Amino acid sequence: MEAFVVKRVVSWGDCDPAGVVFMPRLMDFAVEAAEKWYLGNFGYTWLSLRRERGIGSPMVKTQLDIMAPAEPGDELALTVRLKRVGSTSVTYQITGAKADGTPCFKAEMVQVSVEVEEFKSVAIPEPMRTHMQAYHDACPA
Amino acid sequence: MEAFVVKRVVSWGDCDPAGVVFMPRLMDFAVEAAEKWYLGNFGYTWLSLRRERGIGSPMVKTQLDIMAPAEPGDELALTVRLKRVGSTSVTYQITGAKADGTPCFKAEMVQVSVEVEEFKSVAIPEPMRTHMQAYHDACPA
Amino acid sequence: MEAFVVKRVVSWGDCDPAGVVFMPRLMDFAVEAAEKWYLGNFGYTWLSLRRERGIGSPMVKTQLDIMAPAEPGDELALTVRLKRVGSTSVTYQITGAKADGTPCFKAEMVQVSVEVEEFKSVAIPEPMRTHMQAYHDACPA
Amino acid sequence: MEAFVVKRVVSWGDCDPAGVVFMPRLMDFAVEAAEKWYLGNFGYTWLSLRRERGIGSPMVKTQLDIMAPAEPGDELALTVRLKRVGSTSVTYQITGAKADGTPCFKAEMVQVSVEVEEFKSVAIPEPMRTHMQAYHDACPA
Repeated sequence: MEAFVVKRVVSWGDCDPAGVVFMPRLMDFAVEAAEKWYLGNFGYTWLSLRRERGIGSPMVKTQLDIMAPAEPGDELALTVRLKRVGSTSVTYQITGAKADGTPCFKAEMVQVSVEVEEFKSVAIPEPMRTHMQAYHDACPA
Repeated sequence: MEAFVVKRVVSWGDCDPAGVVFMPRLMDFAVEAAEKWYLGNFGYTWLSLRRERGIGSPMVKTQLDIMAPAEPGDELALTVRLKRVGSTSVTYQITGAKADGTPCFKAEMVQVSVEVEEFKSVAIPEPMRTHMQAYHDACPA
Repeated sequence: MEAFVVKRVVSWGDCDPAGVVFMPRLMDFAVEAAEKWYLGNFGYTWLSLRRERGIGSPMVKTQLDIMAPAEPGDELALTVRLKRVGSTSVTYQITGAKADGTPCFKAEMVQVSVEVEEFKSVAIPEPMRTHMQAYHDACPA
Repeated sequence: MEAFVVKRVVSWGDCDPAGVVFMPRLMDFAVEAAEKWYLGNFGYTWLSLRRERGIGSPMVKTQLDIMAPAEPGDELALTVRLKRVGSTSVTYQITGAKADGTPCFKAEMVQVSVEVEEFKSVAIPEPMRTHMQAYHDACPA
């Protein structure tokens, strides 16, 4: 099992007056990469999880380090790894690199599993949790 | 009754590498102004309307004309008017002007009232519709 | 020559509390599709055009029609056509369709060519303009 | 000297299909609060700093903790404090609270001062740095 990689070309609208990606947009990139990993692995969206099983998946904690600015036209390779898989939360690590391999950013995001009505912690449902653990073991952060 | 005006300072993150507001962000400004008008008049959000009455309020048609670029630090006065009030739809007109009065943009947006489950047109609920009509008559677009 | 198509999967963050793409985000999709068409055809970004030739490319007029809502996980095919190629402006038409062909939205956007210092109209530079005309003739909107 | 507070009403478009503010949007809120603090204190934008003095102000490191979800219509009070003022960088701390005082989020962001051409660290210019130090001493994070 190899680490999941999403390619994303930086667009004009992702960038600020300095001509580089606006910091909060990198968080968008990171969330979107995690989401594509989830959809790609489970064929299931966070919205389906919410509607069909009554389980929400909010991000509650995140940190972002920017190593190099990226600008319009740069293609970033976003690699998704799991840093920690708990019973009710998972920590994603997303790294972004330019085409020449230059590290661009690293994001870590803690996503919790909550029961929608009461907004209380609930176990990450199966088979997602077992798969997350296997992915974590195969592609450690 | 005077036209409703929201002030909004253009931020760094609203702007693109040309140093001016990125076009789709002006649509955000326009929607947000309409939303503040709605909340200010009815003490009610579109989300409450959705949850409590099962009525959605999607924007289905919009047009935007940009007359002058705006940049970080510019304070825009966003004026909300209603161009047309129908039985199941309302057309907002939002104009944005700089502090010196220079017109910056004009947006028109058609918002429809839909029954959430079937996504079918439904009458704009009262007392909103009557109030919209009165506002339209007092402050025509 | 065939019409240029970009695929884009709707993400969680593109959507609003109704669970469908927030209207201004569709304008982002449209601008991004136009930008990818430009980069794909000319190997050149709007930022390079700005920096190297002193020519800006602001969108000044746009309209958007939404035919059907799209939700997280939907893959949209965004087709780029040129509706009109003038000497100093070009009108893009972007249509978005779901995987089963259902039309989702249509956007038209007028982009002007301006000399950056004075913000005055200037001819669309060659070889872009000639290529735009050829694309327009081959794939009319 | 009291801590600077910006009020911001959560809008429909800030929120995701869970009906609460999408996590990266909270980073937008935080950056915008820092920016308003800067403009309010110095009468000067990051863009002016860039254009007139050749100094850029990228955010290079950030972390965000979400304590409670916020939804459309909630008014957040965003309080700006400086956690650390260095010679070439400043760490902002932005806390967001609901009208009833419930803590909603806390963000910390490191902003560096760079010389635009070479993208190298440069001293935070005066009189900004001295003022930042005084604000830090008066309103510690």
